Amino acid sequence: MNRPTQIAVIGKGTPDDELGLVAEEVGRRLAEAGAVVICGGLGGVMEGVARGASAAGGTVIGIVPSEDPVTANLWCTHVIAAGTGSARNLAVVSSGEAVIAIGGEWGTLSEIAYARQAGRPVVALASWRVTPATAITNGEGIEPADDPASAVELAIALAAAAR
Amino acid sequence: MNRPTQIAVIGKGTPDDELGLVAEEVGRRLAEAGAVVICGGLGGVMEGVARGASAAGGTVIGIVPSEDPVTANLWCTHVIAAGTGSARNLAVVSSGEAVIAIGGEWGTLSEIAYARQAGRPVVALASWRVTPATAITNGEGIEPADDPASAVELAIALAAAAR
Amino acid sequence: MNRPTQIAVIGKGTPDDELGLVAEEVGRRLAEAGAVVICGGLGGVMEGVARGASAAGGTVIGIVPSEDPVTANLWCTHVIAAGTGSARNLAVVSSGEAVIAIGGEWGTLSEIAYARQAGRPVVALASWRVTPATAITNGEGIEPADDPASAVELAIALAAAAR
Amino acid sequence: MNRPTQIAVIGKGTPDDELGLVAEEVGRRLAEAGAVVICGGLGGVMEGVARGASAAGGTVIGIVPSEDPVTANLWCTHVIAAGTGSARNLAVVSSGEAVIAIGGEWGTLSEIAYARQAGRPVVALASWRVTPATAITNGEGIEPADDPASAVELAIALAAAAR
Repeated sequence: MNRPTQIAVIGKGTPDDELGLVAEEVGRRLAEAGAVVICGGLGGVMEGVARGASAAGGTVIGIVPSEDPVTANLWCTHVIAAGTGSARNLAVVSSGEAVIAIGGEWGTLSEIAYARQAGRPVVALASWRVTPATAITNGEGIEPADDPASAVELAIALAAAAR
Repeated sequence: MNRPTQIAVIGKGTPDDELGLVAEEVGRRLAEAGAVVICGGLGGVMEGVARGASAAGGTVIGIVPSEDPVTANLWCTHVIAAGTGSARNLAVVSSGEAVIAIGGEWGTLSEIAYARQAGRPVVALASWRVTPATAITNGEGIEPADDPASAVELAIALAAAAR
Repeated sequence: MNRPTQIAVIGKGTPDDELGLVAEEVGRRLAEAGAVVICGGLGGVMEGVARGASAAGGTVIGIVPSEDPVTANLWCTHVIAAGTGSARNLAVVSSGEAVIAIGGEWGTLSEIAYARQAGRPVVALASWRVTPATAITNGEGIEPADDPASAVELAIALAAAAR
Repeated sequence: MNRPTQIAVIGKGTPDDELGLVAEEVGRRLAEAGAVVICGGLGGVMEGVARGASAAGGTVIGIVPSEDPVTANLWCTHVIAAGTGSARNLAVVSSGEAVIAIGGEWGTLSEIAYARQAGRPVVALASWRVTPATAITNGEGIEPADDPASAVELAIALAAAAR
């Protein structure tokens, strides 16, 4: 497979100055590393990562919930209009070879869960902590990261290992 | 709205003797209370709750991932073949006025997250514990329960309060 | 499989006096024959068939596009809130053992196509006529009917033959 | 909106020598015109158009039904793994500013219907002919084309007119 690595970036959809800067740096670093960014195409972290990546010359595919591509933020270089509402969360994480979660509300938690169900490694930057009911192995696979640089490095390494 | 109350029951999909009995009792009690059970239509907790409810004369709608209703367990009285894979998780919880989670793996966590995003109250029986990144109000809305009787009582009360 | 037969009824979603009466009679006859009606849960033909079936004491499951069951018409006895927008069209027809199309706009055409792709027989009452590009067998499987009585009789016979 | 024009190309999924060549020329011409190709990512017409476009240096986003990007044909430059089965048909056409249909079976017909429901213009190359039940305006919007060159020219003009 010679396609460029695809990394999904998920997180809080409402504007947040601090997380927005984190997302922007994650986007920039992913673009500099040659990775394509997959995101949910809307605001907050989705807009931050798209801005960072496309400003650095990278490719960003935003997968919006509605049937209307115009709902995407202006930094996405390509838009997929899924038309399936919040079920597009499944598409976002399934399309990443690894996933970086930045903050996040309930929608982000649904994406973390879908990512792990599909076997995608997740790198968490100030995001959800989850504890399964019992000591089962599938509570694993979510790696914390301290800053954008290490999150991007880890995600790309995990994606490479999964190829 | 004169429709009977609909309660979604979610949980571990692989067979588990202990959780299966819990699910069966939850199903029986929901049917005795006149509630319609919505579930994912497959095995494990989904089969246990369907068996308990339909054996008690209740109605069980199983929403399976595939386009093929034959994939549903035999205790569902009606089958919806969503055709949308794991995205049917969104349909399961959106169709419940309240949600009862019993154990659960990653798929169940995606359902808990979707339920809370859509504002559905969740009652947890030996299921996931989740902690949001920051002190935000939307980490709320998941109520623990100790046994099937109290889970059913709580779910029906929460559903009634939401009407 | 001892479940009652499920018949999907699809058609024009905007109000239409003539088609509404046709749909209502189809619903009544399906209920009298003991079949469960699956429909899209909204207005027009979906409301007509739900009214006819539930007024005759039948069961009607409406699968609405949104995450909100309140969007369903009041004649549905149960509501599935798919949350996947127009992609719920796939769920409607996949959940029927046979499909009856009454009139219809573009959404109905997408359902006829999905039904045939999944191998469900379609009975058409004043609905779309389609012609494939070339003489391929999969242009088959859509049977015209002249009135509600013959449409219901044919759909139930086709469903029985497919069990 | 400064994004490159996105054109969805849909059609017969099983291999077909003649349609494969048509699809390949359509892909090449779209890439030469600077348009991004959106397709279903699998075989037949989807593979032909992807090969033609990427061989000409273009961008091709394949939206596959499963959660697994490995199921995409090797000519897609980017892959979206929708995870929603045939419901991904809605994403394919909603993501195009115009749609080109080449031959096609039932899945293609569902896409033509979804495209028109969402208001996307459709250009048909040896594809389905459809006739609505009654003389309603929404039977319009499907333009026939005689060859790949005129199909591409027409689709790009229709997309430009819709911006």
